Amino acid sequence: MSKVGIIMGSTSDLPVMQEAVDILQGFDIEVEVDIVSAHRTPEKLFDYGKNAHTRGISVIIAGAGGAAHLPGMIASLSPLPVIGVPVKSRNSIDGWDSVLSILQMPGGVPVATVALDGAKNAGILAAQIIGAADKCVQDKVLVYKEGLKEKVIKGAEEVKKK
Amino acid sequence: MSKVGIIMGSTSDLPVMQEAVDILQGFDIEVEVDIVSAHRTPEKLFDYGKNAHTRGISVIIAGAGGAAHLPGMIASLSPLPVIGVPVKSRNSIDGWDSVLSILQMPGGVPVATVALDGAKNAGILAAQIIGAADKCVQDKVLVYKEGLKEKVIKGAEEVKKK
Amino acid sequence: MSKVGIIMGSTSDLPVMQEAVDILQGFDIEVEVDIVSAHRTPEKLFDYGKNAHTRGISVIIAGAGGAAHLPGMIASLSPLPVIGVPVKSRNSIDGWDSVLSILQMPGGVPVATVALDGAKNAGILAAQIIGAADKCVQDKVLVYKEGLKEKVIKGAEEVKKK
Amino acid sequence: MSKVGIIMGSTSDLPVMQEAVDILQGFDIEVEVDIVSAHRTPEKLFDYGKNAHTRGISVIIAGAGGAAHLPGMIASLSPLPVIGVPVKSRNSIDGWDSVLSILQMPGGVPVATVALDGAKNAGILAAQIIGAADKCVQDKVLVYKEGLKEKVIKGAEEVKKK
Amino acid sequence: MSKVGIIMGSTSDLPVMQEAVDILQGFDIEVEVDIVSAHRTPEKLFDYGKNAHTRGISVIIAGAGGAAHLPGMIASLSPLPVIGVPVKSRNSIDGWDSVLSILQMPGGVPVATVALDGAKNAGILAAQIIGAADKCVQDKVLVYKEGLKEKVIKGAEEVKKK
Amino acid sequence: MSKVGIIMGSTSDLPVMQEAVDILQGFDIEVEVDIVSAHRTPEKLFDYGKNAHTRGISVIIAGAGGAAHLPGMIASLSPLPVIGVPVKSRNSIDGWDSVLSILQMPGGVPVATVALDGAKNAGILAAQIIGAADKCVQDKVLVYKEGLKEKVIKGAEEVKKK
Amino acid sequence: MSKVGIIMGSTSDLPVMQEAVDILQGFDIEVEVDIVSAHRTPEKLFDYGKNAHTRGISVIIAGAGGAAHLPGMIASLSPLPVIGVPVKSRNSIDGWDSVLSILQMPGGVPVATVALDGAKNAGILAAQIIGAADKCVQDKVLVYKEGLKEKVIKGAEEVKKK
Amino acid sequence: MSKVGIIMGSTSDLPVMQEAVDILQGFDIEVEVDIVSAHRTPEKLFDYGKNAHTRGISVIIAGAGGAAHLPGMIASLSPLPVIGVPVKSRNSIDGWDSVLSILQMPGGVPVATVALDGAKNAGILAAQIIGAADKCVQDKVLVYKEGLKEKVIKGAEEVKKK
Repeated sequence: MSKVGIIMGSTSDLPVMQEAVDILQGFDIEVEVDIVSAHRTPEKLFDYGKNAHTRGISVIIAGAGGAAHLPGMIASLSPLPVIGVPVKSRNSIDGWDSVLSILQMPGGVPVATVALDGAKNAGILAAQIIGAADKCVQDKVLVYKEGLKEKVIKGAEEVKKK
Repeated sequence: MSKVGIIMGSTSDLPVMQEAVDILQGFDIEVEVDIVSAHRTPEKLFDYGKNAHTRGISVIIAGAGGAAHLPGMIASLSPLPVIGVPVKSRNSIDGWDSVLSILQMPGGVPVATVALDGAKNAGILAAQIIGAADKCVQDKVLVYKEGLKEKVIKGAEEVKKK
Repeated sequence: MSKVGIIMGSTSDLPVMQEAVDILQGFDIEVEVDIVSAHRTPEKLFDYGKNAHTRGISVIIAGAGGAAHLPGMIASLSPLPVIGVPVKSRNSIDGWDSVLSILQMPGGVPVATVALDGAKNAGILAAQIIGAADKCVQDKVLVYKEGLKEKVIKGAEEVKKK
Repeated sequence: MSKVGIIMGSTSDLPVMQEAVDILQGFDIEVEVDIVSAHRTPEKLFDYGKNAHTRGISVIIAGAGGAAHLPGMIASLSPLPVIGVPVKSRNSIDGWDSVLSILQMPGGVPVATVALDGAKNAGILAAQIIGAADKCVQDKVLVYKEGLKEKVIKGAEEVKKK
Repeated sequence: MSKVGIIMGSTSDLPVMQEAVDILQGFDIEVEVDIVSAHRTPEKLFDYGKNAHTRGISVIIAGAGGAAHLPGMIASLSPLPVIGVPVKSRNSIDGWDSVLSILQMPGGVPVATVALDGAKNAGILAAQIIGAADKCVQDKVLVYKEGLKEKVIKGAEEVKKK
Repeated sequence: MSKVGIIMGSTSDLPVMQEAVDILQGFDIEVEVDIVSAHRTPEKLFDYGKNAHTRGISVIIAGAGGAAHLPGMIASLSPLPVIGVPVKSRNSIDGWDSVLSILQMPGGVPVATVALDGAKNAGILAAQIIGAADKCVQDKVLVYKEGLKEKVIKGAEEVKKK
Repeated sequence: MSKVGIIMGSTSDLPVMQEAVDILQGFDIEVEVDIVSAHRTPEKLFDYGKNAHTRGISVIIAGAGGAAHLPGMIASLSPLPVIGVPVKSRNSIDGWDSVLSILQMPGGVPVATVALDGAKNAGILAAQIIGAADKCVQDKVLVYKEGLKEKVIKGAEEVKKK
Repeated sequence: MSKVGIIMGSTSDLPVMQEAVDILQGFDIEVEVDIVSAHRTPEKLFDYGKNAHTRGISVIIAGAGGAAHLPGMIASLSPLPVIGVPVKSRNSIDGWDSVLSILQMPGGVPVATVALDGAKNAGILAAQIIGAADKCVQDKVLVYKEGLKEKVIKGAEEVKKK
């Protein structure tokens, strides 16, 4: 069965990244959470990137802020699809550094970037990637999308009542 | 077998988007190219998004420029993973509009965004997504990454000779 | 009689968009408020855009934040003038994403964009559009502008007293 | 019959603004073109803004670049809907100054802003505004939108042939 | 004797602009404060700009936020040096709109722009302009600069003690 | 009689700064041109700033690009009004560095900043500053403004003929 | 023995700059702290820059905000390596002015710029510079890096326990 | 004797980075040039960073563009001072991605960042770092600075002759 590896550069990224964990657990997809810092634990980064695909992980979600090198470095080491979450960390310049240092990867080494602090969407995207080959997960995505719709329609009804 | 749907908002995006076609064909992955404009052919957009997953497509790559709504709207309609390519079109403000209107999707509807004009990386990412469940394609990705490495090493040797 | 359709992507946009409702009611112009999410209720978006002009609506005001596709998608579906309000939503990058994804529409599909969180101005603009063919509404706009002037002059007098 | 006033700050804006003239003439809408500089002919600006609505003009399109004050100043003087076209003039900082000094109008004085150099869209928007009360013009807008669709579909067919 | 006219678009700009008043009064230079809104009182703007130099004013300081047209419009109407203060108003996009719509004036109509919310510096600059022809005021500027220096030197001593 | 000191960081700034020389000579105001580099000739910078006001200079115009410290450093050394011209030099990041490092001076040390590459406006502003105390120069400014107006009106006539 | 000179433009920069002091004292490197304002104490700036290398200082760390000229001006006066810390001061435009006016130095006069408010990193960089020729200090840097790694690994263990 | 390691992500960065080689050779400092791609040769990156300080290198200069991870990753692996050169590569968004992904390093891992395409300044900074402990090199830096001054003074004389 598919497993999603969720990593982040620092424990301070956890409040943002927890949303990816939660949504994937809602889809009954196994997750494995770890702290891997590109700049403070480069050896661990290296091991993680080289071996994730050999131990049952199908998709990697990597979150980091500022000059955020974790998603791109993992993408350079792993053949798996890597989803990057730009985190608006404390010293970030309004998030622009996080976004650009994850998004603007050179030719040959893509990172699937989601919105600033968009860990929830990273989780959904990981489910969609697994769902691309697993109709059971894809059906759960379709059900999830129906849920989004119903919530908006209910909100619309309440607005109209006023 | 997996197929990748490549769409773009206008024929003027084709020179950029062709790189996605080429790289996927290099991985022996079937592609289907079409022009779908969110703003000029909204009915076609609707049909495409609703049905792509029912006719053998596993991953969608959507490229657009300026206020680029194609990738996000397709993502709202389809359960498939959608890769967005921000195109630096003629009237774009240095590409910022293309990037932000694709990247900053609301919670619930992710788009896997790649770099500005990064169609080649969109193609590689599509291959990695297919490879997440298809070891044969994943092996081709590993071989491709080896090729990148060798090219850099050869370049390094030439620089040292001078 | 003319009616203005006011829609927004989420109930969380209502505090901003209420200013458009209020100002239009001050001009005695009928408004119809609804929640239509481009990304979560694409079918409703489609119906709304296709039919608004057939059921008495003259102008549409659409507010959304982040990668804001609602105004542009409605403009692609409707022949009516569409006023877009970029909302500075919680995860927006300082509002730049909202502004650029509404403003930078491609040739053929305009959105009349107002300032960030500028719902009040959207309401006034809708009144001016109706007033372009209805001298009674145009006169109300002229009276409103006189009121603005008087408020500034009163403020000036108070400043001078100090 | 409705007439559209098209003004710009300098003859150097004419190549951009001509697109508004052309599209409106294609809709058989009368246009009146003039040069009005907020900064060099403030008296003319004043006269124009005060009187446009008294001499048969229904909509004003105003284009300017850099610190672009023409659209906003006209909007302060006239009760008509004013469409602003940010022009990327020679000394503009990539168009940001033109966009922000037209878009970010204070509460009470809206300008309907279109994309950078988006004069064609300004013309279409003017037609939509007139069409809001004139079904004959609205029908022309609907026909125009059909034409956009057909062009994309034809482009799609050519792409598929390759 | 020289007099400085200090104007602003709204009473809400007064807390920022008060610093210009205070510093000029510290230099014993007469000030005249008024509210003049380019967008809400265009006739007053016109009168003010046309006549300021005929009634004893030597320098004008104009503060405004958002799409800030007051300084530039006054500069278009008056032969006096106009100092523009970009105010970071409530709906401003981080101040960028205020800065660019004051700074980027077209050739022929300069505005002497100071830093965002830099009303104190606007006051000092007005004193320097008057001091350019009035040695008594220039000497006060020199004394003021000495005061700045002493304050820093005192601060340095305290830091070294720790 | 008043004299304007025009300095710049490098001979490569001369093509931009020449416009300030030309316009001031058109106003019959004496100019003195020099190269003073804040970073390469700090001693000369020091001498220039300390002594300009003692040798007949009334206003200083300083142009520089990139991390442009010349205008601000001169302003720190001289009691004269200093006009800063941000130059879009070869390695500048679209001019943003030049603009911000001249405009955003700390409290106490103003620089009268004009538009990017706005040397012509710097010259006009210098004339307005001299004109604040010299009615003969102020009259020339008024005549110059009339000339701007006539040029626009002539342009308007030509546009209407077409 | 090597000494690091730490200077800043204002006592208000001290809370940020204190981190550089602390980290260097942790490496047992002597520091000398002073307030030197480029704009308020230009003579002190001049003396400091000219003489630092003659009185035992090996590296200079200079912090400043807004139009931050202190690091660049010191670099123009001293042959020592100068580390610039852009400080996000109260009136800074989100820190962009501080960053660009320190980073974008012209050819010939480098400033070693660190992240916005990155005084801690400035201290580490100073230690690395001293360590380039002093193996004892370099060893302390290696130990420090081990400490960073252990902290991340401990954090990872705690995350996994949950 | 000290040696400077100059690395870059791609041979396409060589035209920019050659300036660092040239200036260091002018200071008679030994350089070693290599191509090391963070994303394409991660193993080589790892080896280079881990071992540079053990084989006679004192300072590392690393240039890269776009999402530029090379300087930061080398800094995470090496105890040496690392100078980062943001390169404005072909697909960079005006250089902002290169600058921010090098500059905004997290606490603990500094990169000494120079201006966009500022390889010449990187070379001078490396010489200053070596000169911090080697008076012979520091004297060469002082001579170099004298040369800069003389060139400006000569330029000033030519400007005055005109």
